[in-house]
Amino acid sequence: MTESLQGFEARRARGNEAILEGAPLPIKRFFALDHDAYEAGALSRKTKELLGLVASTVLRCDDCVTHHLRGALDAGATREELIEALGISLVVGGSITVPHLRFAWELLDGLLRVGGPEDEGT
Amino acid sequence: MTESLQGFEARRARGNEAILEGAPLPIKRFFALDHDAYEAGALSRKTKELLGLVASTVLRCDDCVTHHLRGALDAGATREELIEALGISLVVGGSITVPHLRFAWELLDGLLRVGGPEDEGT
Amino acid sequence: MTESLQGFEARRARGNEAILEGAPLPIKRFFALDHDAYEAGALSRKTKELLGLVASTVLRCDDCVTHHLRGALDAGATREELIEALGISLVVGGSITVPHLRFAWELLDGLLRVGGPEDEGT
Amino acid sequence: MTESLQGFEARRARGNEAILEGAPLPIKRFFALDHDAYEAGALSRKTKELLGLVASTVLRCDDCVTHHLRGALDAGATREELIEALGISLVVGGSITVPHLRFAWELLDGLLRVGGPEDEGT
Amino acid sequence: MTESLQGFEARRARGNEAILEGAPLPIKRFFALDHDAYEAGALSRKTKELLGLVASTVLRCDDCVTHHLRGALDAGATREELIEALGISLVVGGSITVPHLRFAWELLDGLLRVGGPEDEGT
Amino acid sequence: MTESLQGFEARRARGNEAILEGAPLPIKRFFALDHDAYEAGALSRKTKELLGLVASTVLRCDDCVTHHLRGALDAGATREELIEALGISLVVGGSITVPHLRFAWELLDGLLRVGGPEDEGT
Repeated sequence: MTESLQGFEARRARGNEAILEGAPLPIKRFFALDHDAYEAGALSRKTKELLGLVASTVLRCDDCVTHHLRGALDAGATREELIEALGISLVVGGSITVPHLRFAWELLDGLLRVGGPEDEGT
Repeated sequence: MTESLQGFEARRARGNEAILEGAPLPIKRFFALDHDAYEAGALSRKTKELLGLVASTVLRCDDCVTHHLRGALDAGATREELIEALGISLVVGGSITVPHLRFAWELLDGLLRVGGPEDEGT
Repeated sequence: MTESLQGFEARRARGNEAILEGAPLPIKRFFALDHDAYEAGALSRKTKELLGLVASTVLRCDDCVTHHLRGALDAGATREELIEALGISLVVGGSITVPHLRFAWELLDGLLRVGGPEDEGT
Repeated sequence: MTESLQGFEARRARGNEAILEGAPLPIKRFFALDHDAYEAGALSRKTKELLGLVASTVLRCDDCVTHHLRGALDAGATREELIEALGISLVVGGSITVPHLRFAWELLDGLLRVGGPEDEGT
Repeated sequence: MTESLQGFEARRARGNEAILEGAPLPIKRFFALDHDAYEAGALSRKTKELLGLVASTVLRCDDCVTHHLRGALDAGATREELIEALGISLVVGGSITVPHLRFAWELLDGLLRVGGPEDEGT
Repeated sequence: MTESLQGFEARRARGNEAILEGAPLPIKRFFALDHDAYEAGALSRKTKELLGLVASTVLRCDDCVTHHLRGALDAGATREELIEALGISLVVGGSITVPHLRFAWELLDGLLRVGGPEDEGT
């Protein structure tokens, strides 16, 4: 799981670089503000990543779920917090989101098994 | 604004009662768990209402935006926190969410002008 | 309610005529097949209207809900059948569909109160 | 096809168990009512599965299409009925649903070729 | 129609100003790039407004349809071109987009009746 | 990439044939008008394919992106024009469309590397 996550992150980074290289200005600016929007402000980075996770789940984008699940763990979210956020997604978005919950759960369990957020940074 | 919000809340309550009266069990249970999902747990009620607000905005439902904007204010969210949450919605959901941001902003300013749920800012 | 429904149907008919008058062929053909798709075949017209109602509810289009709710009643669907179909919509589509359920319920109750398409319940 | 379907069902079951084990109450309740909503009532289980299939197709979730296509076959739906339901999905949801129709058709033909859930057509 | 369009544009402008006044940087930047993305480049402004119109129609946002329909007319699009673009929207997005086509048609006919951006047809 | 694209086109053609063989009339007619809608009229085929590409991207369907990206190249669209169309998609649809932009970019670069539309079929 972690390796495939690393594979995902590498593919994602290469894909974004391919887009940014020679992209017109509005696209470049979009990527910049997409990055900035999750910086800590009135809301913590953890809360913002949870917001991104819920938005990604109800809009049903597994790549985006992966990105924000990892971001939330990096920012200190616990398994319980992530699961409650996914629970909100399920209630708002209905059973059509269930395949994405299964995806998120498997990813989360894989990440926590190899050290996860508790081991993060040690 | 507050009056139309009260009108909305009254209409919403009457509509929900009409549904629940004689509804089959799965519908009744859905309404019950929809209520419970926002209770404080690992995440605070404020954070959960912000999650509900972002989900509502990217899925573009003004009634749901109204409900969770008010819920977040009731749970202690500040104007700055709400605006950052709406900013995440805009970045994830794109310009198609802008009409809902205009709606949320007008509602928020109306609520805060009359004292808001807890006399915010006075 | 019935009067506003008649208003809706008149507006809808005028709007469709405006589109069809002078529309390019693909649009005309789309309208024709949209009509034909709900004719009885292996599935009855009632079942097809219920399918249209559920699709309209999870995609959250009140005009379409109105059209198919009325079509299903015309084809003999009962209040109980319609409510179970809306229950499926709620479970698949989540709480974001609730405002459309409130809309459908109010419309349904209005239609049945005045006798409905076939004096349901009298 | 049937084997990959069995693979899908096994993965789906394992994924749901992983979610339910230790999930907060609202999630557990959602799964319970999601199951109950398709039980026969005013509408037959077959009709409810067809409603679930159309909702899944217009919302474009292949896992959900798989689940309800199989459920509808189990409940006695014929190929002709399933195809008419998918036709409604296409008309309501447009060409963006076509890839999911191709998916459903291939799955359906595979299921019927090996005898289907109940040796359909023999 | 034209007057209500002017009302819409005024409300829209006021709403956007309310958002931009004191908004965090990512929101301000989003509004700036949203404006810039429709400037002429490899594609003409007319083509870009038609792209915006189709995106708005399949995502079913009447405010956005209004904005891009007017933008396309301002950039020189003819009634025939607009109708073909809406035809593509209908085919891709299905019958769920029909209410938005009715909306767009009425708006378009109102705009052209009063002279429109270039006195079309007189 | 070209080979996997050929694989995609072959699978797509086989899938469509499977659907059309014995499909009820509304489905057959839908496929016919879906084809006709992109023929040159008031708008060129290139513009119509770009409209289809943007609709496909904001509705987030990679198969549809593949189909219209190739169609636009066949109709003479340049890399710059395609990228500007994808930029409109990103602004309207938000960061949730980014994985589809990565997909489109990789496909586009693969197609142009092997000669692109000009070399196609020679």
